[in-house]
Parts: sequence; C-alpha cells; structure tokens
Amino acid sequence: MKIAIAQLNYTIGAFDENYEKIVRAIRRARQEKANLVVFSELAICGYPPHDLLEYKHFVDKCEIYLQKVASECHGIAAIVGGPSVNPNAKGKNLFNSAYFMVNGAVQRIINKTLLPTYDIFDEYRYFEQNTEFSLVTYKGFNIAVTICEDLWYRQPLLTGYGRDRLYNVCPMDNLSVLCPDFVINIAASPFSYLQGEIKSGILTENTSRYKVPVFYVNQVGAHTELIFDGGSMVVNPTGIISRMRLFEEDFCVYDTDEVMTAKADAVTIPEQSEIALIHDALVMGIRDYFGKSGLKTAILGLSGGIDSAVTLVLAVRALGPTNLRALLMPSQYSSSHSVTDAVTLARNLGVRYDILDIRDIYGQYVQSMSPLFKDMPEDITEENIQARIRGNLLMAMSNKFGNLVLNTSNKSEAAVGYGTLYGDMSGSISVLGDVYKTEVYRLANYINKDHEIIPQNSVAKPPSAELRANQKDTDSLPEYAVLDIILFHYIELKKSAEEIAEMGFDPKVVEKTLSMVNHSEYKRFQTPPVLRISTKAFGPGRKMPLVAKY
Amino acid sequence: MKIAIAQLNYTIGAFDENYEKIVRAIRRARQEKANLVVFSELAICGYPPHDLLEYKHFVDKCEIYLQKVASECHGIAAIVGGPSVNPNAKGKNLFNSAYFMVNGAVQRIINKTLLPTYDIFDEYRYFEQNTEFSLVTYKGFNIAVTICEDLWYRQPLLTGYGRDRLYNVCPMDNLSVLCPDFVINIAASPFSYLQGEIKSGILTENTSRYKVPVFYVNQVGAHTELIFDGGSMVVNPTGIISRMRLFEEDFCVYDTDEVMTAKADAVTIPEQSEIALIHDALVMGIRDYFGKSGLKTAILGLSGGIDSAVTLVLAVRALGPTNLRALLMPSQYSSSHSVTDAVTLARNLGVRYDILDIRDIYGQYVQSMSPLFKDMPEDITEENIQARIRGNLLMAMSNKFGNLVLNTSNKSEAAVGYGTLYGDMSGSISVLGDVYKTEVYRLANYINKDHEIIPQNSVAKPPSAELRANQKDTDSLPEYAVLDIILFHYIELKKSAEEIAEMGFDPKVVEKTLSMVNHSEYKRFQTPPVLRISTKAFGPGRKMPLVAKY
Repeated sequence: MKIAIAQLNYTIGAFDENYEKIVRAIRRARQEKANLVVFSELAICGYPPHDLLEYKHFVDKCEIYLQKVASECHGIAAIVGGPSVNPNAKGKNLFNSAYFMVNGAVQRIINKTLLPTYDIFDEYRYFEQNTEFSLVTYKGFNIAVTICEDLWYRQPLLTGYGRDRLYNVCPMDNLSVLCPDFVINIAASPFSYLQGEIKSGILTENTSRYKVPVFYVNQVGAHTELIFDGGSMVVNPTGIISRMRLFEEDFCVYDTDEVMTAKADAVTIPEQSEIALIHDALVMGIRDYFGKSGLKTAILGLSGGIDSAVTLVLAVRALGPTNLRALLMPSQYSSSHSVTDAVTLARNLGVRYDILDIRDIYGQYVQSMSPLFKDMPEDITEENIQARIRGNLLMAMSNKFGNLVLNTSNKSEAAVGYGTLYGDMSGSISVLGDVYKTEVYRLANYINKDHEIIPQNSVAKPPSAELRANQKDTDSLPEYAVLDIILFHYIELKKSAEEIAEMGFDPKVVEKTLSMVNHSEYKRFQTPPVLRISTKAFGPGRKMPLVAKY
Repeated sequence: MKIAIAQLNYTIGAFDENYEKIVRAIRRARQEKANLVVFSELAICGYPPHDLLEYKHFVDKCEIYLQKVASECHGIAAIVGGPSVNPNAKGKNLFNSAYFMVNGAVQRIINKTLLPTYDIFDEYRYFEQNTEFSLVTYKGFNIAVTICEDLWYRQPLLTGYGRDRLYNVCPMDNLSVLCPDFVINIAASPFSYLQGEIKSGILTENTSRYKVPVFYVNQVGAHTELIFDGGSMVVNPTGIISRMRLFEEDFCVYDTDEVMTAKADAVTIPEQSEIALIHDALVMGIRDYFGKSGLKTAILGLSGGIDSAVTLVLAVRALGPTNLRALLMPSQYSSSHSVTDAVTLARNLGVRYDILDIRDIYGQYVQSMSPLFKDMPEDITEENIQARIRGNLLMAMSNKFGNLVLNTSNKSEAAVGYGTLYGDMSGSISVLGDVYKTEVYRLANYINKDHEIIPQNSVAKPPSAELRANQKDTDSLPEYAVLDIILFHYIELKKSAEEIAEMGFDPKVVEKTLSMVNHSEYKRFQTPPVLRISTKAFGPGRKMPLVAKY
C-alpha cells in the first residue's frame, strides 16, 4: 500500500483556498499511485481556529467543505482533519476529528482523545474527549488513526511535583491491543527550538514501544504568532526513516512495505543548527503574517542598534527588499554612528530609507507641556515622549503608505519592561519578542556568517536606548549574559527566585529581575503578537494576572 | 447548627492579606457562635491566579497559608478554597479544592468536578477533574461540599446544536443519593448584567430538584478585568431566603434550622435595575484596579463627549475627586462647546482640569513629515496623528505625575475598530470597553437621574470623534441603536450574518458591520484590559484569530 503525506500551509477560515489545496494534493496522490493521502489536524479550517469554533455557521462550513473533499475521493482514500459535531446529548459541542474518506464519502470519523490545554493550547475549551478506540480497515490493513497529542501520553513533564503523566488515558495502549499494522498521526504541532528532539523522541518512543510504524503529518506555516514547522516524519521501530521539509510545504509518497523494512541508520536526516532553525522560523512567521493578511509591505524604525538591524534582515528575507522601508529617527541623544550604521545596513540590503529628525517635534512637546510641568526635573517622562514620537511617526507612515509597522523589541526587554508602551513597543507583529538579547546576537552573527550584512559596529557596541545622554542598558539592567539565564529559568522553566539564586546568582539581582518581570505584565498585555519560537512566549500562552502581588 | 458566610474581597497572591482577612472572619464567626464558617473558591490566593498555579513555589505558599488558617480552627470549623496537589501519578498537577478544617487541622479536601473552560474560564488548564463523591460529616450533619460550577450541570447552553449538557457528570446527582442535609457551594462567579437571573435560577433549580438547602458563598471584588459581585445566597426548596450585599464585603450567620423552615415568599430581596448594577460594577472595577495595584490617582482625556464624561463620573465615585485629573486637549476640529461642556463637568465634580491645545504639536508633525508626505492629500493619517498626540500627552502626564490613564472607549467603537491604536485606545484599564454606546447613554441618564451632573449637551449632541471638520460617527457607522443590536447578536449570541439579517436588518449593513468587527481584531489585541460586565467582553474571554479569513 502507498501512503502520501501532504504537508500543507493552510489559512484559518479560508475554506476555498484550503479546499483547493487539499483537492490538488488528492489528485496528485492518485496520479502517483498512492492508495491513501493524509492531511494535518483541522486541515479544512486551519489550526487553531480559536473561538470561530463557537460559531455554528463556521462549523457548518467545515462540514460542507469536508463533504466536498470526500466527493473527490474516488480511487483513493484520504484522511482530513476537521471539527465534528458531538452526537451525544452531553459534553462539549465538538470533537477534534480525523475524517476517513473513501468512495466519494466520509466513511469514518475518528476523534481525538488527549486534548492539550496548556501553554498556547486550549482544546478543552471547544472539544469533548474521545473514549472509544477502534481501527480503520482499508485495503486489508488495520490502521490506528490518532490526532497529534494522542501520541504524547508519555511526554516529559516540567513540573516540580515528580508526577509523570498529564493524562489518565493512553490512546496507544488502547489501540495497540487491536494490533494495528501502522499508525497515522495527523498533527498541528508548533515549532519551538527546544522541541525538535523531544518530538523525534516521542515518535521513536511510540514506534519502539508498540513495534509499529508511525506516519506523522504536521501542519506547516504560521498563524499570527504560532509557527508550525512541518517536518512530517515516517518512523519505524528502528527510528526515523524519513523527514519532510521544514518551514515549507512538501509532498511525499511512501510504500508501507518499504517503511516496515527500512533501517533508520541507513537514512541521513539533514540537521540544522538551533539558530538556523530560529532564523528560518522567524522568516516564515513574517512571510505568513503578511501573505495571509493579503499585505505585502512593511516599515520599521532603524536605530543603528542590533535589534532593528536583525529584524530588518529577517523581514527582507521574508518580503523582499523593495517591500521594506526603514525610517531613521535620530534625536540629540543619538550617537553619530547610529545613523551611519543604519544607513550602511539599509544600503547593504537595498532597502529604501528616510531620515526624519525628531528634535523639532520633541521640542514642541516640551514647550507645549511646560505650563504643566513647570520646572520639574527631566525624568523618564522625557525619554518616553521621544519613544512615542517615533511610534507616532511610524504609524503615520503606515497609515499614509499602507506599510505595516514591524516591532523590533527583544524578549529580554519585553520581560523586564525595558521599553515604552505605544512607543518602541508598538507595531503589527513582534519579530524578536520571543528571542532573548543573547540570541539576537547569535542571529546577527549567523546572518553575517558569510559576509558582513549587519555593520559590525551595530553588533559590537554596548546596547543603549539612546533616550538620554550616555545611556547604556547596563545602567539599569544586569549584563544580558546574566539576565537571559535568569529570565529563561523563571519564564521557560518556572523556577522560583530561591532556585535561581542557588544556581550561583546574586539573590538581590535575581529578586530585582523577577520583580521587574512581574511588574511589567501590564505592558506586555498591550503589545503586538509575538512570533513564538520558544516553549514559553509572551502572549496568549502565558497568562499572568495583571493586578496581583507576587 | 450555625453557619457563617464570609464574603470577602481577596487580592491575588497577597497571602498575608488574604490570610489576615480569613482569620479575622473565623474569629468573628466563633464570637457570633457559628459552628462553621465558609469562604469562597480559591480564597487563599484569590481567583483567578492564572499561570501562577504553574509555579510550584506559589502552590507551596497556598498550602503553607492554608495550614496556618487551619491552626486557627479551634471551637469552629471552616471551609476554605485553595489549590491542592493531585496525589495520583496521572493527570493534571492540581485540584481546585475546598479544605474542610476543624480542631486545628485540615480534616478533608474536597475537589471540584466540573471545570469551566470557556469564555474567561480556563480551569482545565490547571486542574484535574474530581471523580469521587462523598459527604462531610460534622456535628451530626451530612454536608455536600461543592465548588462553583459543580452546581451548574444544568446551565442553559447558548448553542445552535440543540444539545443540552456541557458535562458528562452531574455532581449533585452523585451527592444527592448520599442524602446530604444541606449543600455548601464555594464560588468565584463573575458578574454579568445578563447573569443575575440565571444564577438565581440555577440555585433554586438545585434546591427544588434535590430538596435540600444550598449555602452559596461567592467572591466579591475585581481582579483586573473580572468583576465578582458577591451576592452570596442562602436558598431552600421554597426559593431564595437571603442574599448578601452586592459589590461589597459582607458577613452573615445563619441557623440551619431556620434556613430549612423559612419561606422564600416571606423574604424580600432588594432589586436593582440593570443599569444600576452595571454602574456599581464599574465603580468597584475601577476602585479595585487601583487599590489592589497600590495606586490612587488617575487621569483621563476629557473631550466634552459622553464617553469620557461617564468614565470620569465613575472614576470620581471610585477614587474620589481629588484623585482625578482631567486633560482637555482641543484642536482646530474641536467644537466650541466641547471645551465648555468638559469644563462644566469637571467643575460639577470638583476635579482639577488643564487645557492643553494640541495645534502647535500637530502643526510640527505636519511640518516635519511634509518632506515625506509631499503633497499627498489629507486622510485618516492626519486624524490618527491627532489621536496619538493626545495619547502621548496623557502618558506624559501619567509618567510625570504618577496618575494612571483611564481609557474612555466604548464597546461599540472597540467592536468596529472605530478608534486609534496608541491614541484614544490607550490607557491602563478600559472602563467602558464592555459597555455598548446605547448603554453609555443609559449610564449617563442614570447618573443624571437626580440632577444634571453630566451637561445635557454632552448627552444630546450627535457623537463625533472631532478629528476632521464636521465629522460625525454616523458618517461611517450605522446609527448606534441599530449597530448595537447587530453587535450584540454577533458577539454575545454568536449569530451568523444571515441570522441577524433575518431579524429585519439590511443584509449589507450587517455584512459590513461584521466585517468591521472581524477586521479590527488586531487593534483589540493591543488594547488595555476591559472591565467585564457582559457575557462576552473583548479580551481573554474572546479568542479570535488575527490572521484569518472570516
């Protein structure tokens, strides 16, 4: 039997487009003599549709288009992800389902058992849990159809409780006793640079424990902040025997006989460094944010610093240099090399840039406010006014010329609240908001690996917001090499101040850092969506109370 | 037996304060001869603690303080809400629990069965579901201890599927067969102006079905956007026999014999109009946002329009006139009465106001940008610049004087994206963001019911953003009386365009309105938290994809 894996990039709610893509893949699979073609989780509407699932007309549309897809399934079977209505009187309205289609109709609907409801996942908000297990029989094969998390019963848990299983039911234990010939797993498993090995580990753990191959079909493409990396895999009890492309659509046909006898050590899976993966993920994240919104052009404030430089390079790679525009907005506090470094970068990339000095506008603010401020000393107010003038100018350019503003803040700044709300914290999408400052440096070096694209001066100089004379980030923050480790252990690993201090950090520095994180929740509440590359990004996957003492 | 209900206002994570409040109530209850005193859901840490529950040191703290509370329980028993660690190897880390304490120790832990995971609730993110049912025996009484949603098995479901139960298990069916003498329900049930009757209905449905009284203990107070109204109740099979105060802390002792024999028709429950409830809810929402953040003073932009006028009145009632400051920021497009109406209101309220004309700053922006804009015609860009100048000035005042900025946008505007991001959409907390424009008028009339506080001119004039000459809201929006009904049926009731048009609205107007709602998701993603008074507020309770076609 031949199985085709269609790794596609869907747009949420774009039923016509998604349907067309699916049907094209069905036709291609049939042409390439496949007996079955498999699509990813909730393929018909794209994953995650969020509260659109609470609108009955949206779910109705999913069903209509799934029926249309089924009517294409002649001479071939297909497995397509979509929501299905719970036929029981009790429980949630929907199941998260795999539709098995053959002979022009939906023949079976298989429902998801394990409903991830943590971090960015909220599936129990919409879906009822499956409790019945059976195999799909097709062409003499017994197939265990599973949906994403269903294979993740034995996932490693990062908790301090020494507990070992997130769920009470193991779908594969129930399916395995029915003796499947192979497992199909349709997934929408998001990228994180820490997750790659865990994902492979989970798949190989399943194949070796249950002595059965797994065809794992992942979604590819970005949906606002969530980046799905694709990388669909075929795994047998010896290990991974094929991995499809990362960050791109892909299509492959596999022969089950060959899959069952292949040896993993005879196969080379191309490897990419962590920083290359982050780079590619962010480029796809920008590209899809624009492409799926029907937009093409972007603008950003180019300061001469490393964050805006890296953001611009990533954006140029996603959208092309002619679709980018850079605005340089120096003030009296800008160092002379700020403008020259920014100009050099824009020229290196072939990006149009304009220089708009903010001193006159700033001066007018100071003058207009002087009757209210009288002779009160300058403080953070004046710094924020400058940052907000820049935000206002970028938004004005955006309004006038139709370019979306790219936010250039990094995760370290966002964590400690080192940024101005409505100023440098504004924009349509935050490109580096899940990238710690030390990783921004690694990205810059990766970008410059063959030749200098980002001026070395931008990489080498001490980081500064340049909002007052001789300001340096380290005036108010620990060195980023220290800061980022503290932040990672607090945000990603959820350690306490005591635990982090025990790693060898000054307890006062740790306390102060965590306090800054906790007290800037209100700022992060109002910032743009952040392209997610870690296991814990700011945004909907990290829900912290704003008004609270901790 | 005598049961005390302690309806208290907790602060999330403020263990010392919460502990002190609880212990004071235990002592008072003992003094007043109560045998048992009951506190609300997750009382020890405040509800909802969100992802703080993922930090082990936070949960450890809950347990330490619960033990401290237990050690106070001599000569009296207490039921206190808090998280507890799941002792089983499988499933989520925590239960949402009621701690039964007596003789100086925790004697029993009862866990929540129904875990709301919809709208603003996400309990399955943290908690495992209870599956075992038993009663607590104390002083010869058999007590069914339940937690909030546990009584909501038969809640009305707003779905188009004709399905009738959200959950598969009915806790009260399981507890009822054990013949309890009464039921205790510890809750954190948020206010919504549509929810009051539903809540009473659920309680009386339970008491009449199971022939047993219910002591319902609700949390009071606001936690960022969530407003808990208190209104704890004692209900027996004849109906509601006591309701405690709304929007305030309260404490009452009930005799179980009297509760069992009381007649509901002999009791008068004070009634408040819907608009009075909304008014009181918003005032408490502002007061707690500031009080629990340790802050006192606020500022807002006063335009002479109705939204900022109502916001100012509510804020004055929450914080006192001397803690408020108003900034009037007229431009060339401001009508002459805008300033006079705003000044009249500020004087009526005794609030300090300042006038800061934005024309010079605006003129400087236009001049600075002219090399880039050249002779392109004026458009929405120039309108947004004005709105953002005002946002910048308010934030500058906030930075300089330490007053938090109150957002004055209403729900109708927020819904259709009729507002400027980083301009009038900025602020610390949105007071009216869940109040439709037609309800803002009702609030204004309610405020003016005894004498004119808000100038009648602000109430009567046609709504306008005053960002260009002779602008009126109805230039680009339907009349609010029409708009708000369409919005309510789409947002709160989740109807489709077709269903709404069938109510008698022009299908084109409906299409255009829903399209405006769908296309301004990106703006709402970046706006301040919104005080929630409806069943569907913008914010974390309404998760819609930003990049999607629908």
